Amino acid sequence: MVTPHFEQAQLEYARYAVSPHFLQVIQTLHKTGQLSRTDLANELGYSRALVSGIVKDLLAHNVIREIGDAASTGGRRARLLDFNSAFAYVVGVDIGATSVDIGVANFRGEIVERHHDAIDVFDGPEPILTHVVRLIQQLLAKAKIAPGDVDALGIGVPGPVDFEKGVLIAPPIMPGWENYPIRQFLRKTFPQAAVVVDNDVNVMALGEMRYGSGTAVDNFIFVKVGTGIGAGIVVARTIYRGSDGCAGDIGHIMVMRDGPVCHCGNIGCIEAMASGMAIAQRATEAARNNTSAILASYLTAGSAQITAKEVGLAAQQGDRVALDIIKSSGSLLGDVLAGLVNFFNPRMIIIGGGVSKIGNQYLASIRRAILKRSLSLSTRHLQINYSPIVDEVGLRGALELARDHLFVEVAK
Amino acid sequence: MVTPHFEQAQLEYARYAVSPHFLQVIQTLHKTGQLSRTDLANELGYSRALVSGIVKDLLAHNVIREIGDAASTGGRRARLLDFNSAFAYVVGVDIGATSVDIGVANFRGEIVERHHDAIDVFDGPEPILTHVVRLIQQLLAKAKIAPGDVDALGIGVPGPVDFEKGVLIAPPIMPGWENYPIRQFLRKTFPQAAVVVDNDVNVMALGEMRYGSGTAVDNFIFVKVGTGIGAGIVVARTIYRGSDGCAGDIGHIMVMRDGPVCHCGNIGCIEAMASGMAIAQRATEAARNNTSAILASYLTAGSAQITAKEVGLAAQQGDRVALDIIKSSGSLLGDVLAGLVNFFNPRMIIIGGGVSKIGNQYLASIRRAILKRSLSLSTRHLQINYSPIVDEVGLRGALELARDHLFVEVAK
Repeated sequence: MVTPHFEQAQLEYARYAVSPHFLQVIQTLHKTGQLSRTDLANELGYSRALVSGIVKDLLAHNVIREIGDAASTGGRRARLLDFNSAFAYVVGVDIGATSVDIGVANFRGEIVERHHDAIDVFDGPEPILTHVVRLIQQLLAKAKIAPGDVDALGIGVPGPVDFEKGVLIAPPIMPGWENYPIRQFLRKTFPQAAVVVDNDVNVMALGEMRYGSGTAVDNFIFVKVGTGIGAGIVVARTIYRGSDGCAGDIGHIMVMRDGPVCHCGNIGCIEAMASGMAIAQRATEAARNNTSAILASYLTAGSAQITAKEVGLAAQQGDRVALDIIKSSGSLLGDVLAGLVNFFNPRMIIIGGGVSKIGNQYLASIRRAILKRSLSLSTRHLQINYSPIVDEVGLRGALELARDHLFVEVAK
Repeated sequence: MVTPHFEQAQLEYARYAVSPHFLQVIQTLHKTGQLSRTDLANELGYSRALVSGIVKDLLAHNVIREIGDAASTGGRRARLLDFNSAFAYVVGVDIGATSVDIGVANFRGEIVERHHDAIDVFDGPEPILTHVVRLIQQLLAKAKIAPGDVDALGIGVPGPVDFEKGVLIAPPIMPGWENYPIRQFLRKTFPQAAVVVDNDVNVMALGEMRYGSGTAVDNFIFVKVGTGIGAGIVVARTIYRGSDGCAGDIGHIMVMRDGPVCHCGNIGCIEAMASGMAIAQRATEAARNNTSAILASYLTAGSAQITAKEVGLAAQQGDRVALDIIKSSGSLLGDVLAGLVNFFNPRMIIIGGGVSKIGNQYLASIRRAILKRSLSLSTRHLQINYSPIVDEVGLRGALELARDHLFVEVAK
């Protein structure tokens, strides 16, 4: 049989090397929360004796602890097993184009410190990552956690990522970051820690899966509508990355054959017609043409360009032009998502990103277009909602990415 | 530990109930072919002792047999293990709108008898399935296999399938089949057999994965272009069915905002513009308008409607109208697939179905449109090809569907 095995992994992408049985027990606890030994044996199809041996070792390594009692089932009360909060600490970093969210969490995923800061991703990787490391050190000091006790860092970045190497590939909005060794940079300060880098929307999908609307469903699409448009795909409760790691890059799907030219060079991409940037541009145009007094007033108030947020505010005040922009953007996005619903038949579509705060008309237009254009069979049980945790879904995801890479399976 | 376990399953969707370790060994042999005991132990991370025990039991049950010797690696030569052909027999049935393919294969998946027959799916389930059962019985008689020795039947049907129940749901081209208990009907004749029903394009994707271009890739999309258009999706070498079993139903994705009305009621669906039916309709129109002499000659030769096949023949003779129809159909299908490439980032797109025999111009137009509209990152390693086994991919898939349901895991 497999020898029980638990040691430091000495790997840059995982912290501890454990035998398959250990990993199974850890993953089951991660997935379902507190369990008794009997629950574990039933869940995994292991014998009581095997589970007892594994649990004994995990207790000895302080990975888990015994807590309270399970509800009595007539006989002797069973002790429940749970993760030991202090066994490990993880850091999550959600890098956006203009801001960064950083958090420190314990082994149970509970955030102990967090910080939000403005950045400009165009400054390039070294200045940004140097700043990020300093912020992490400050958070750790506040939380009284030694830097050497950080076991894993999860990083979300706004571009396509080679997940194995942990580098960005051909990132359109952050050219200086291409192939920059983010993992190695962070391991200079945290040499003992696993460092995992992923695309920001994949990270958001992971956060949504663990803490948002995705907790109860197997297959869903998380759509981020911000400056650009992207999607994170979950298949069987796992992030689906595709063959080259760029699955979910839906921003350049054609939605109108004779639409405007996109920055990618093609015509009628959804990103050129319904992203936060496109909404802002259409509104700015309307303001300049004086077709909307409210939008024009935002422009005269000093800003060079109306923001998507301001379009939402104008719509709430009943501005018809703003409302039309929001409705048509939602409708176009819904047309694209309808095609993806036919193809992928997800249980749920979750809309996040800044534009998801623009008001309910936007969501209603998305829903209407999806229901109109998708097969009825594929929309019978389909839910389409805003992310309920939109402001922290990226940070939550980055922390979960780190937690997911604490252990690696080693057969011995 | 798990007790070794091997018995008749008494389940309608599986033939034998086996313990998890047995299933792992069987699946590994299915996936990789012949292996030595040491290979198996390495592949699965099991101890030599555990593998020896499982192999001994599988040999005793005649599931596997020992053959020849593995290449010597210096020491003692290891015996190779392989499936025992005669352990089980499976039947595959690929039901199309106008024809059915039936095959009988042994446990190694080798076809021993096969038959192709014309049917009309509109005749309804009972006449068709009665005919199918009779054909199966004839094939079994020819192969000298007793009906009681058939262990599993895999059936592909041209419509959305509730995979758990084995029934069609709201099938657009075969209304009489909705909810018809195909499994129960076949089990009247083969009460001992597992019966598994799936959508025809999913079945084709499975056949392509095991015998066609899909053998070497993890993620691909199989696109069937026949009367209609559909896709089978493979994720991590598993058919992805979606939340309601209708994933891959891409025929009604919008490709032109001001296109023709589709039979589904929406406008500009790809099926209304690029399916075999659409190609035939456009060619028939051109023949009636006398814009193409060759196409017109097919019409006067007696048929009420030009077929897609004839459009291919006309194009081969240099008919410009036929060529234009083929090119624009390919280009439109490519536009839809480009969106799916951005979303799903597959390693490969495989085009099958009758229209894939229309000539290479069609494939070239599909490729061009995909490369033009997809992100360069997602097409770096993308292959786009016709199915090399187009005429038997459905039957192969139906047989593999049956083979995949010979065993079910039962933890004891």
